[in-house]
Amino acid sequence: MAEQTGRARDGVLFTDQYQLTMAQLYYERGLHERQAQFDFFFRRYPNYGRHQAGYAVFAGLDPLLEWMEDVRFTDADLELLSSQTNEAGQKRFGDEFLNWLRESGAFDRVVIRAVPEGRVVHANAPIAVVQGPLAIVQILETSLLNHLNYPTLIATKASRIHESAGGSPALEFGMRRGPASGANPGGRAALIGGADFTSNVGISHEMGLDPKGTHAHSMVQVFMALGQGELEAFRAYAEVYPDDCILLVDTIDTLESGIPNAIKVFAELRAAGHEPVGIRLDSGDLAYLSIEAAEMLDAAGFEDVQIVLSGNLDELEIWQIRAQILDEFARAGRDPSRLMERLVYGVGTRLITSQGHEALDGVFKLVAIEKDGDWTPAIKVSDTPEKVPIPGDKKIWRLYDARGRATADLIAMADEELTKGDILLHHPHRMGISRVIPRDEITEVEDLLVEVFAGGKRSTPSPDLEEMRSRRIADLDRLDVGVRRLVNPHIYHVSLTERIKSLQLELIDEARGE
Amino acid sequence: MAEQTGRARDGVLFTDQYQLTMAQLYYERGLHERQAQFDFFFRRYPNYGRHQAGYAVFAGLDPLLEWMEDVRFTDADLELLSSQTNEAGQKRFGDEFLNWLRESGAFDRVVIRAVPEGRVVHANAPIAVVQGPLAIVQILETSLLNHLNYPTLIATKASRIHESAGGSPALEFGMRRGPASGANPGGRAALIGGADFTSNVGISHEMGLDPKGTHAHSMVQVFMALGQGELEAFRAYAEVYPDDCILLVDTIDTLESGIPNAIKVFAELRAAGHEPVGIRLDSGDLAYLSIEAAEMLDAAGFEDVQIVLSGNLDELEIWQIRAQILDEFARAGRDPSRLMERLVYGVGTRLITSQGHEALDGVFKLVAIEKDGDWTPAIKVSDTPEKVPIPGDKKIWRLYDARGRATADLIAMADEELTKGDILLHHPHRMGISRVIPRDEITEVEDLLVEVFAGGKRSTPSPDLEEMRSRRIADLDRLDVGVRRLVNPHIYHVSLTERIKSLQLELIDEARGE
Repeated sequence: MAEQTGRARDGVLFTDQYQLTMAQLYYERGLHERQAQFDFFFRRYPNYGRHQAGYAVFAGLDPLLEWMEDVRFTDADLELLSSQTNEAGQKRFGDEFLNWLRESGAFDRVVIRAVPEGRVVHANAPIAVVQGPLAIVQILETSLLNHLNYPTLIATKASRIHESAGGSPALEFGMRRGPASGANPGGRAALIGGADFTSNVGISHEMGLDPKGTHAHSMVQVFMALGQGELEAFRAYAEVYPDDCILLVDTIDTLESGIPNAIKVFAELRAAGHEPVGIRLDSGDLAYLSIEAAEMLDAAGFEDVQIVLSGNLDELEIWQIRAQILDEFARAGRDPSRLMERLVYGVGTRLITSQGHEALDGVFKLVAIEKDGDWTPAIKVSDTPEKVPIPGDKKIWRLYDARGRATADLIAMADEELTKGDILLHHPHRMGISRVIPRDEITEVEDLLVEVFAGGKRSTPSPDLEEMRSRRIADLDRLDVGVRRLVNPHIYHVSLTERIKSLQLELIDEARGE
Repeated sequence: MAEQTGRARDGVLFTDQYQLTMAQLYYERGLHERQAQFDFFFRRYPNYGRHQAGYAVFAGLDPLLEWMEDVRFTDADLELLSSQTNEAGQKRFGDEFLNWLRESGAFDRVVIRAVPEGRVVHANAPIAVVQGPLAIVQILETSLLNHLNYPTLIATKASRIHESAGGSPALEFGMRRGPASGANPGGRAALIGGADFTSNVGISHEMGLDPKGTHAHSMVQVFMALGQGELEAFRAYAEVYPDDCILLVDTIDTLESGIPNAIKVFAELRAAGHEPVGIRLDSGDLAYLSIEAAEMLDAAGFEDVQIVLSGNLDELEIWQIRAQILDEFARAGRDPSRLMERLVYGVGTRLITSQGHEALDGVFKLVAIEKDGDWTPAIKVSDTPEKVPIPGDKKIWRLYDARGRATADLIAMADEELTKGDILLHHPHRMGISRVIPRDEITEVEDLLVEVFAGGKRSTPSPDLEEMRSRRIADLDRLDVGVRRLVNPHIYHVSLTERIKSLQLELIDEARGE
């Protein structure tokens, strides 16, 4: 990308300075080519305040791998690094090290095993396992975290919105208040996680989707300022888009002006042989207005017209709107299903910013390093038990129970075989907490990590959107409803095998003994 | 940029679909070339929950203008649009309209007047005023909002962090958890708003700054895993960076291991003729640890060594750390100034995500349109008075009082002259609330909006970072301390002249009368 755009920010210098200073230190100490393994995982599910996630949806992997394929230390990059000086006015980076970066600084020798993009992932279980020369993997850290943390956060939020919408379509509308160019990866992640469409034209086309959107208040204002009114604006819209006609009805007054005018125009459309598509409500009490709008539309014979709702929506707002409608209908002894089926949700700022929980706390931790030709597990002792990483080269088994539901992610050594007897699951941080699952209660064991990058290239073609969505849907189907709950979800079990637990304890003792 | 990267997301299709459908409607109705004016402004200052902003720092303008210079509807873009079909399977965009976009769809005829980047700006006062052909300015809306909202939000947060750090340096460290590629514009905005440096290598070089950073826990872990310890890791660092030596001291135990080891290495450095630069504390009670660290360093003769603090900091955390140190020293009857002067703050996730307030609510509203060769003001009537935009072509006067302090931003008609008598200021939304300032109490009147884009080009060269920072510093110096307060700031007055207020009322009456 640096070669494509020529901007330092887009290339391999999209990293933190300390990765480069550490890389040079490893170079100077002859450690730069040592094989090292770092794990990517997050520690806590998003907690939005009044509601909390019990799972996450992994996103951002393919753009990361694409970036890794493309970038290398260009002459321009090396010139910039060569221009850096230390406090004493001397060059910070030596020529030998910079030459090594030029020759060997690409990601050709990095191997990544990861959970496929779109799948449901859990706290503390490695999502990506990265092996390669120590200095190179260290340089990769920042970009990897940057490419994976935010998209996973947004895909997770989108999945929650999809769940709360109960089968109704959800549209992503957040570009205008999204995080500058981050709105693009954010939009992509939303599509993977649960948004059916986005208003973002560029990303829609890149993902092979039709972008969604009709008109804004400004269009009605233009007609008003020119001495015409809302009705004329709607007529113009219907004339230009007779088969795509969704009208925004709240510029003046939703019930008094917008809906009656929309109904007039819909009738004209139908008389001309076209079926109107919908109305959009963007302010006010959306549950109440939906009920009123549906009645007015039904009375006029437009029973199939969609009602698109927007305006500061998120999973909790959507849930509240649906609950309010269900209550109202229950009180009146009416069936709400027809109204529910015509609702569509447009979600903007609160999705693209993951309102309430702004950052996934994903980390990239050294867990093993080559010593005398063998892997040596690494650990960081911390007074906070959750911060002690799980050492060594690992695999993740997802265990499914008799109902076919995922019951735990079990972290094992890479060369470990699943025991034939009952399975002992240790709590990842707390001592003495364990659980035994009889072997015959487990109907399926799935190895979650697959090779995704090696030899400087992606190991498989880029997954298409539908593939990533299918993974998410399949995983959610096999997740306990308690874990999927929007508020106070059950805690999904992420556990350690006996072998991993013993290794962890052994290393902690060793480190403390030093 | 689309031409540079070839990706739809980076070019002119970085917009919402409805801007294009509206543009085609204007084209079909012959309104596309009408001159229109849209204002960019925000309605509410960021409210972070326990603390609130009383002002904002404007950022993101130059990257927007650069994007506007670069993009146009390329053949690839038009092909994508041409491929879109409506519900009936026909082309959504007509060839004539697409041809018009090809010929006339660039931003050559757009003129923007704006507050210069880096300046202090206020709610409800236009920050950018955009005039041009209706369809073109409509297409620009999404990208303009996207380029300005998030950077302004981050520059504002950075300014607050700078204020709370009380003159100590603040460093931006947020890439790893920032919003994917948005971490780059976020880092730039942080530098404009108050971060002294960033760890982001690419952005540092683009902005002409030295990137900051030393080493991570992983470096100490590498040495530990290889059978060496923290001391050996520190020695290696000091050897490679004798004049840049900042050591992270909390990998094992800050007071028992990290600081004693750092002091040993600092003594060795000094014996070899180099002065150590600092230590970094990344966990624990940072106020307490700073005091203890300072005492240990002082006792060892390292009284000038910096103490860099990091770990989930924001303006309130920094404020709390400083308050706790001041309290401790006051209790002991000691002078805290030497400790305060050696502190440096590293701020990450909470800055790059504007923790607590994730999005600026900036909007882009139609305020005037050409009719019969004249400007006709436009209005949107709303039941929420704050949502009624201020109509017409305007200017913004910043009024300074006898102390040289900004006392109000006064919104006037573009052709209005400041009255020679006392100045009447109307509340922008509430009826009957006004204030009179005697003319002789105003020492300076500044016209805030300047032309920044015309003829397809920026009107002035890109401002350099120091220029933007100087604007911010000068504006903050002239802002009342009550408005700068971190918690419950005073409300800065943004007011309307008598002429604007009358026009607003007249248009509301007209619209309601329809």
